[in-house]
Amino acid sequence: MQPAVLTIAGSDSSGGAGIQADLKTFAAHGCYGTSVITALTAQNTTGVQDVFPSSPEFVKKQIQSVVEDIDITAIKTGMLFDTDNCRAVAQALKQHYCSSTTAVSGSRSAFPPTICDPVCVSTSGHTLLHPDSVDIMISELFPMSTLITPNTQEASLILSHRNLEPSTKIDSLESMLIAARNLMTLGSEAVLLKGGHVTAKMADVDRLADSLCSEFEGSGNKENENSSGSNKCQVQVFREGLFGENMEILQAGYGGDLASTELVVDILIEKERTTTVFARPRIGSSSTHGTGCTLSAAIAANMAMGKTLVDAVRSATIYTHIGIGTASKIGHGHGPLNHLHALYQASVPQRTPSNPYPFTTLLIERSRDIWKAYVEHDFVKQLGKGTLREVCFVHFLKQDYKYLKYYARAYAILAAKSTSFTSIGSATQTIINVIEEIDTHKAFCAQFGVTEEELERTEESRATTAYGAWLLDMGLQGDRAKLLIALLACLLGYGEVGLWLKKQALRPESGVILDGNKYLRWIEDYSGEAYQEAVKTGLEIIEAQAAADPPSPSRFEDWCEVWKRGTTLEKRFWDMGLNLEY
Amino acid sequence: MQPAVLTIAGSDSSGGAGIQADLKTFAAHGCYGTSVITALTAQNTTGVQDVFPSSPEFVKKQIQSVVEDIDITAIKTGMLFDTDNCRAVAQALKQHYCSSTTAVSGSRSAFPPTICDPVCVSTSGHTLLHPDSVDIMISELFPMSTLITPNTQEASLILSHRNLEPSTKIDSLESMLIAARNLMTLGSEAVLLKGGHVTAKMADVDRLADSLCSEFEGSGNKENENSSGSNKCQVQVFREGLFGENMEILQAGYGGDLASTELVVDILIEKERTTTVFARPRIGSSSTHGTGCTLSAAIAANMAMGKTLVDAVRSATIYTHIGIGTASKIGHGHGPLNHLHALYQASVPQRTPSNPYPFTTLLIERSRDIWKAYVEHDFVKQLGKGTLREVCFVHFLKQDYKYLKYYARAYAILAAKSTSFTSIGSATQTIINVIEEIDTHKAFCAQFGVTEEELERTEESRATTAYGAWLLDMGLQGDRAKLLIALLACLLGYGEVGLWLKKQALRPESGVILDGNKYLRWIEDYSGEAYQEAVKTGLEIIEAQAAADPPSPSRFEDWCEVWKRGTTLEKRFWDMGLNLEY
Repeated sequence: MQPAVLTIAGSDSSGGAGIQADLKTFAAHGCYGTSVITALTAQNTTGVQDVFPSSPEFVKKQIQSVVEDIDITAIKTGMLFDTDNCRAVAQALKQHYCSSTTAVSGSRSAFPPTICDPVCVSTSGHTLLHPDSVDIMISELFPMSTLITPNTQEASLILSHRNLEPSTKIDSLESMLIAARNLMTLGSEAVLLKGGHVTAKMADVDRLADSLCSEFEGSGNKENENSSGSNKCQVQVFREGLFGENMEILQAGYGGDLASTELVVDILIEKERTTTVFARPRIGSSSTHGTGCTLSAAIAANMAMGKTLVDAVRSATIYTHIGIGTASKIGHGHGPLNHLHALYQASVPQRTPSNPYPFTTLLIERSRDIWKAYVEHDFVKQLGKGTLREVCFVHFLKQDYKYLKYYARAYAILAAKSTSFTSIGSATQTIINVIEEIDTHKAFCAQFGVTEEELERTEESRATTAYGAWLLDMGLQGDRAKLLIALLACLLGYGEVGLWLKKQALRPESGVILDGNKYLRWIEDYSGEAYQEAVKTGLEIIEAQAAADPPSPSRFEDWCEVWKRGTTLEKRFWDMGLNLEY
Repeated sequence: MQPAVLTIAGSDSSGGAGIQADLKTFAAHGCYGTSVITALTAQNTTGVQDVFPSSPEFVKKQIQSVVEDIDITAIKTGMLFDTDNCRAVAQALKQHYCSSTTAVSGSRSAFPPTICDPVCVSTSGHTLLHPDSVDIMISELFPMSTLITPNTQEASLILSHRNLEPSTKIDSLESMLIAARNLMTLGSEAVLLKGGHVTAKMADVDRLADSLCSEFEGSGNKENENSSGSNKCQVQVFREGLFGENMEILQAGYGGDLASTELVVDILIEKERTTTVFARPRIGSSSTHGTGCTLSAAIAANMAMGKTLVDAVRSATIYTHIGIGTASKIGHGHGPLNHLHALYQASVPQRTPSNPYPFTTLLIERSRDIWKAYVEHDFVKQLGKGTLREVCFVHFLKQDYKYLKYYARAYAILAAKSTSFTSIGSATQTIINVIEEIDTHKAFCAQFGVTEEELERTEESRATTAYGAWLLDMGLQGDRAKLLIALLACLLGYGEVGLWLKKQALRPESGVILDGNKYLRWIEDYSGEAYQEAVKTGLEIIEAQAAADPPSPSRFEDWCEVWKRGTTLEKRFWDMGLNLEY
């Protein structure tokens, strides 16, 4: 189930910022994205060419359409553009979430987690919020916000509107802290002041942490810094990608000089001055278009998934950081982040009611020709027509006897690789089935004049050894899944051959006959209920395995090769039978 | 590199259709999404509440901003709303792509692959294209389109505008074929007529295929139906999730009755009447909001990635089908598809310049406490201070001798599990290194009065057996990656201990000393260049492995458990040394 998240922001035609960045970020977090557009921009990586605002009435209508139909678990607001749209957003949200009489004032608790990114000016200098709207944003939106996420420029602008310090430029961690604390007086539950424009080193972070700790020491509230995410702490410092305690070997391997590394530092203040500092290395990159939109959207997505504010901010800063670090060059100016860095495309489609076997379907489709050559082999066709030379069938039976020993041993390896009693039991049951089959096999052989002694004495053909030893190799080389796939070509193939022959028997032109066919029992064995049940069980195991532990693209390719090899070895087994090869 | 795709369409606030569906679909295909908005809608799963159109000038401006900055590899158009916006789209695209004098007429070849989804009316009955705009869409947009993707209702409307058949309802595959052929006269390069509103069974598909084949037979152009995607064919039929040739076992396992299964059939016609039929089971679902938007966006994304039109349409129909089949209920009406069904979130972040070891960082962070208990064990601290009782160190040395045998054997299993000469060689080199170390080990033991004979005679402690046998079990149970992780706690831990002790020695208050410490050589061995180089190589192998074959969430959890267990067994090894346990 994807939690639904709402962004209320501008549209960036070039896709790197605004609701586009938000929707991509929501998708990257597995959330369902909805969006209310306050203004269209004609924009690209070089700047904002023009803005086309939505009417405040239409902003309200969009909000109503979304919140009245869909259960929204987190909201973020971005570019609101002007005073009327600011008001419209606040009114529509209050109207929906505070409709009970006790909550008319718009108390925070009535809203889903709401992240207000107070977007004012674009990186390229374009006004994204009219100056006279700042006061409305502060008075109307901040009080309903779980968190506001200004950068230092926005913080200066907001603080100056309320005659709060620092009036001068915010250019150090100390002035960031003062600014963040003063922003806390403006009504939001928490403040994240983003330090992307401030230069800092590890020594600055340590100094800030020490001064924060001594403050709390003074008030008898000291807690350890850099603790592992517990929310009891008053002061926490997260150093991301900076190789903390007991990570000397990683630092040594990386080889960088920690002390001189330029850092980006964000400061989060929650109620009662609980302070969290997020430090990470600065990445020299021009792919920073939409960084702020992305961060606030990621915080909203993480909160929608139930994370605490600190964990949500921490995850979001890491997500955004990697998005910058892995971005490809797009456009001619400040390009977008890579929003999809944490996603992989599944190699196997999800199971649906109409196809419970998507993985097996893919395997067969990927090696369709060799699979067909196996299932519709001349050996099989002649067997179906009853024209197969008995000597060939007997040769096949003898070699199959040898093969079944490998097959049973491979299942023993599978049992040894299993970690639950269910899977140990299921592999073991197959061994027992094979051993019981051996008696039938012997009786069947006797029917064709082959004694038990002759069976044992038979020289093993190359095809048998190749196939059998390959199964054992798969058991040695890989994990349980790989061995299951190696064993699949035999299990499925004989089942398919059985059903295919039975279907051919319905078409007179195929020449396949059942009545009077001396190989009828063989056909009935593999098309019969018992064997087909085993096939069904095997299919279920392999599909469940592929769904529970979806393979990466490279692992999927490896699995396809294993399947193809197994199918090929099966086909060669028929060749061997037909050509009486050793 | 993500190919950039542009959608020109309306905005759906509820996120299931319009540019929102398109952006999600682009993201699901790993494409970079850009979007030009022709109109905002206040919309949810129950219907369209209102529309707020963009001005045609602003539509043009958005298109210019995108195409002049970003290299667009495919375009899709959706809801265009009115005549002026239709014209604006056509003009802006022509202006950019046909600016050379030879191409003023707007010939198709000048454009990136362009998919025109001729959205006219919403499922809920809301007008999304003014009736008087249909002619403009036909005359201006169809000629620049690689493909148009009407449903049967839209096809009827479009055909009636040009007085083309069928004038009556399109309600059979035969009438669909006539409609699709007539749509081909309107200027697009290809037509995909979507049969979501037409009821069909497998017999209908077979009849259609037969009649198509006999047409081509008549004209001497017969090609096999249902061939494996070759583009040479004149007629192709894809049966998705319908268990084709040699898939009897899947059909048997599924158990459904193929003949009575209700199908959805789409018909694609390309130049010269090359016809492809896409059939799949109909899913009974109300999660169909935005199906058309999603399909055309998926076709555009697939073409952006270089697929042929047939392959792009085939992939897109499968993607959309599974999107319906796996949708969760969102909203109170016709809910959106699951756009993210083919994505999963990576458990390990991508490697970046500032953190080349994201996987190892995560492993350490996930078991931080036990890792710290291992690295900063009392045994280690006492060893660093030189206060460790010699008898404890000797006990440790003897057991380490036993352990190294297991360690070497585990690397032998690793070699046996490797498939390249590089990885076979690297594992084998480690075995050779261990065997050479054994001599140093013996000399070191002699220094503490332990003879070689005593070393061999020593009883193996439980901690040694547990750790050693566990390593071998990991080698038996899992694949190469799992064994590598099992071996990692030892390799990294001793390196970390060496560096940690050296760092402590710089802090007088730690009590750790190097000068005159009788265990100095041990410390120097593990903090020394040779061992640290081995650590660096090991880190590189494990990170490359995790990046090349990213683990699924369940596999990642399994790996974390393996790491934690290895770390715990290391910690218990120190316990054993300190407590002189057997």
